[in-house]
This record gives sequence, structure tokens and C-alpha cells, in this order.
Amino acid sequence: MRQTVSFITLGVQDLARSRQFYRALGWRESSASQAEIAFFQAGTLAFGLFQRAALADDAGVAVAGSGFPGFTLAHNVESEAAVIQTIDEAVAAGARLVRAADKVFWGGFRGYFGDPDGFLWEICWNPFFPLDEHGYVQLPEPAAP
Amino acid sequence: MRQTVSFITLGVQDLARSRQFYRALGWRESSASQAEIAFFQAGTLAFGLFQRAALADDAGVAVAGSGFPGFTLAHNVESEAAVIQTIDEAVAAGARLVRAADKVFWGGFRGYFGDPDGFLWEICWNPFFPLDEHGYVQLPEPAAP
Repeated sequence: MRQTVSFITLGVQDLARSRQFYRALGWRESSASQAEIAFFQAGTLAFGLFQRAALADDAGVAVAGSGFPGFTLAHNVESEAAVIQTIDEAVAAGARLVRAADKVFWGGFRGYFGDPDGFLWEICWNPFFPLDEHGYVQLPEPAAP
Repeated sequence: MRQTVSFITLGVQDLARSRQFYRALGWRESSASQAEIAFFQAGTLAFGLFQRAALADDAGVAVAGSGFPGFTLAHNVESEAAVIQTIDEAVAAGARLVRAADKVFWGGFRGYFGDPDGFLWEICWNPFFPLDEHGYVQLPEPAAP
């Protein structure tokens, strides 16, 4: 399996509410979006919003679930000030502040907000992973085998 | 907030088991990986594996959670045959078959496997989103405002 992730799709309770939130963050949907699914290009990743029950049904699994979903998304920025500003903007767009930004033991600076379903976004400044000219993280290559 | 996703981090129950699984899929860790966290470059996205309790602690949320986590990852491939082959390879690497590949009403062909924690991977052939020369999905641009 190639080392790629084509899509991440969030299963949301209220698609209209989630669309509005991500648009309020400044994201623009692909023209491929449809009434029942929203698509956003995010670098080489496509980001989708789909009704939670429909997503579970597509996978053939039970929709029930609660608590920590076991994953986080992160959005890295270029400075501590940009962490604070980005979280402030997200909260102004309707996000819930989950963890106010603070220094981390490993040397970074980060905070978390929750989207309308509580999916967690870490906003992070990581001095060890500088952003490339397009704003993406490029990790060091694998070590030689 | 720029329209990017820097990281997705999966909170896993057994980091050694998950590392072994993704390596068995053919993925290679960045040399930035450490004992307690695994990093894989996946296009412009960085994919991380971290202990579930540590991930919840970093966000300052309770670790408890069960059932459908409310999201899926997808890996798009170039043909129906490649869907079947990729799922077979994942199962050989230790994945659980969640949904055998079949045609979807919208015209695609997909199946799902679960990773060691049950995180869902859709393997999909989507004739409407052809892959670029690097194997990534590039959605149509947003419509003019």
C-alpha cells in the first residue's frame, strides 16, 4: 500500500453546521461538493464532511460511539503568536476552546480547539518541523534501512 | 486558518503493534520518529501514531471513548483490481476485513479494513477523482464565488 492518505472524512451530526464552521475558518469547498457531502482540498489530502450515520453505514459498522474518538488533527503554524491568533480566529468562527495554548515539554507551543462535533484540532508551532514554502510539514526522510 | 492539515495522529492502544502493522503495509517511518511516537510522511500530510492515553492527555481531554470514532481514512487506487489487491495485502499484514469490496451506488468501488485499533481505512477506486501522477487526489477547484 502506497504511503498516502487520500481522504479523511469526518462523520458529523449536522452537515450544515459543520460546513458553515469550516467555511467560517476560511476554507473553500471544491466544486465537487454535493448537498450530502462537502469536500475541501488540503494539500495532497482531501478533507470530507459527511453525515455520521451515512459514514458508518458506508463502512458497514454500527454508528454508536461516544467519548474521545482517538485521533487528532493538527494545523502547524510558523510562530507562537500565530498559534494564539489561529485559535482566537477559530473560536470566533464558533470553535470551542479545549486547551489554551501553552508551551510543551518537547519545546513546541500548542493549543486545541474542538470543531462543532468536538473533533480536536491542535494548533501547533513546532520548531523542529519547519514549514516548507507552501506551509506544509516535511518530515526528515526515513533512515537508511 | 489556511486550508491545510499538517498532521493526523491516531491514538493507539499498543504502539509497537501499530508500528509493526503500518510497516508491514510497506510504510517507512521518518527518521524523526522516536520511541514514543511514530511519524510517516504521506504527501503533504504527516501521519502519526501515539499512545491513546498520551494523546488524550496532550489535548487535556478524558481518554474514555468507545464505538465508532466518527471518521474514516481513505486510500484511493487506480482500479477495481487494485482495491481488491490492496485490501488483500492489508489483511495479510494483519488488518481485519470490515467490508468486502463492492460497487457503490455513486459509481465507485470500495471496501474497508480496520487497523489494529479498528480505525477504518477505505480502499477506493473513484472514477470521478482520477489520481495525479504522484497518486494523489486533486479535487476540482472551488467554484467562483
